[in-house]
Amino acid sequence: MQILLTNDDGIMAQGLSALAMKLEKLGEIYVVAPMEERSATGHGITIWDPIRTKEIEMQGAKKAWAISGTPADCVKLGVQEFLKDDCSLVVSGINNGPNLGTDVLYSGTVSAAIEGAVLGIPSIAVSLASFEYNDFETAAEAVCRLVRELMKNKSVIPKDTLLNVNIPAVKKELLKGYKITRLGVREYENVFDRRVDPRGNVYYWLKGDIIPNQDRDPEIDVVAVDNNYISISPIHFDLTDYGIIQSIKKSGLENIKI
Amino acid sequence: MQILLTNDDGIMAQGLSALAMKLEKLGEIYVVAPMEERSATGHGITIWDPIRTKEIEMQGAKKAWAISGTPADCVKLGVQEFLKDDCSLVVSGINNGPNLGTDVLYSGTVSAAIEGAVLGIPSIAVSLASFEYNDFETAAEAVCRLVRELMKNKSVIPKDTLLNVNIPAVKKELLKGYKITRLGVREYENVFDRRVDPRGNVYYWLKGDIIPNQDRDPEIDVVAVDNNYISISPIHFDLTDYGIIQSIKKSGLENIKI
Repeated sequence: MQILLTNDDGIMAQGLSALAMKLEKLGEIYVVAPMEERSATGHGITIWDPIRTKEIEMQGAKKAWAISGTPADCVKLGVQEFLKDDCSLVVSGINNGPNLGTDVLYSGTVSAAIEGAVLGIPSIAVSLASFEYNDFETAAEAVCRLVRELMKNKSVIPKDTLLNVNIPAVKKELLKGYKITRLGVREYENVFDRRVDPRGNVYYWLKGDIIPNQDRDPEIDVVAVDNNYISISPIHFDLTDYGIIQSIKKSGLENIKI
Repeated sequence: MQILLTNDDGIMAQGLSALAMKLEKLGEIYVVAPMEERSATGHGITIWDPIRTKEIEMQGAKKAWAISGTPADCVKLGVQEFLKDDCSLVVSGINNGPNLGTDVLYSGTVSAAIEGAVLGIPSIAVSLASFEYNDFETAAEAVCRLVRELMKNKSVIPKDTLLNVNIPAVKKELLKGYKITRLGVREYENVFDRRVDPRGNVYYWLKGDIIPNQDRDPEIDVVAVDNNYISISPIHFDLTDYGIIQSIKKSGLENIKI
């Protein structure tokens, strides 16, 4: 089986190589990752510039390319051009930092896995839920165990769904196991820092401190990770809000005249 | 009421100024838009660079800023910094080209409206469904009519939902009215064009021709627009696939040992 790995931290990231070395046991590893860090790119794709590619050597990988595009570009190019649609699994990560709750909207890591699902391939996004802690070895092991299970039972991830996995930043012996969760909410405060450059021009830094979740439901991804569970949230990419279609129809919006 | 306008085609785009001039009747218009075209940026945000801002004059707008960020940055900065959270409506557009079906994942226009909804503000993304046709006047009129209706009945858009509006590229008299729809699927073929530069380096252009929709259900956005209806799809940003949580739990994935 051919497995495509990508990430948004860039081709040199420790989390990516940890994954390649661990998943090598399960199939042929192909890596397509951004040349540079592309965090918070969301589901951006490159349509105004060409995408440059450079084949490189990477331990654990049969072939690896660094490209000038976004994480979503990596998956499109990897699946459709390099692997000629012969790909059994896309794994994106291991991200350095969590991708929980509403933050998945901004995440390049998750968007790459969404792109895999759009292309009809079982896909997983994986993040280590800390910016400092970097035991990618344990995290990669946890992913490997999960992938092995998913390969045994392929119907677990239906078409058009992917798994968003967040691994707590704790020692292996403290991990409590895997937990299926839903996405929570991530709110920030003090979002912009206004500054003036030496030439008098105004600029802003986006910052923001996380407001601790009020909702402590253990079924939420944020809470599961706080409780030392490996959080697995099934995600889909049909953004239609089916629940309100009927109420909007009833509101009479369809009857207004232009 | 204070209305924030943005887009992904950039501050100079015709669709943006058409909107400002038309919506001026309904409230105070504030514009925050990218300095340059930022199509297909998805829900990217700017965290590695500062965001530069430049206040400019724009007809119809009380104040307008061109910024170096993405469409999602525009909404964050506009709502939280420039309007100090006093914003009644976010309108993103009018995009030059459709944003239908799965393409909304890549759309800066739609991502800006999603960001508005994330911030708790009623939000609308608007696109004119053609890259050539440019009667933004009629499109802006259709948006104005819709906004007027939504302001009369504020409960139509619940919290955490936004509307994705696509206007057919036809003369006003051919428009059949508004239709509530769900997102369809957009598939592409022949996606990459491989080239070699004069120095022997390989690069790719992302291209791809749309494969015509097989599903002709008139309730789908793509089909509604083909049938000359103004398509209104309610969209939410909770990507959790609730439908499969129970089946994944039953599959035993939570019981595997690391």
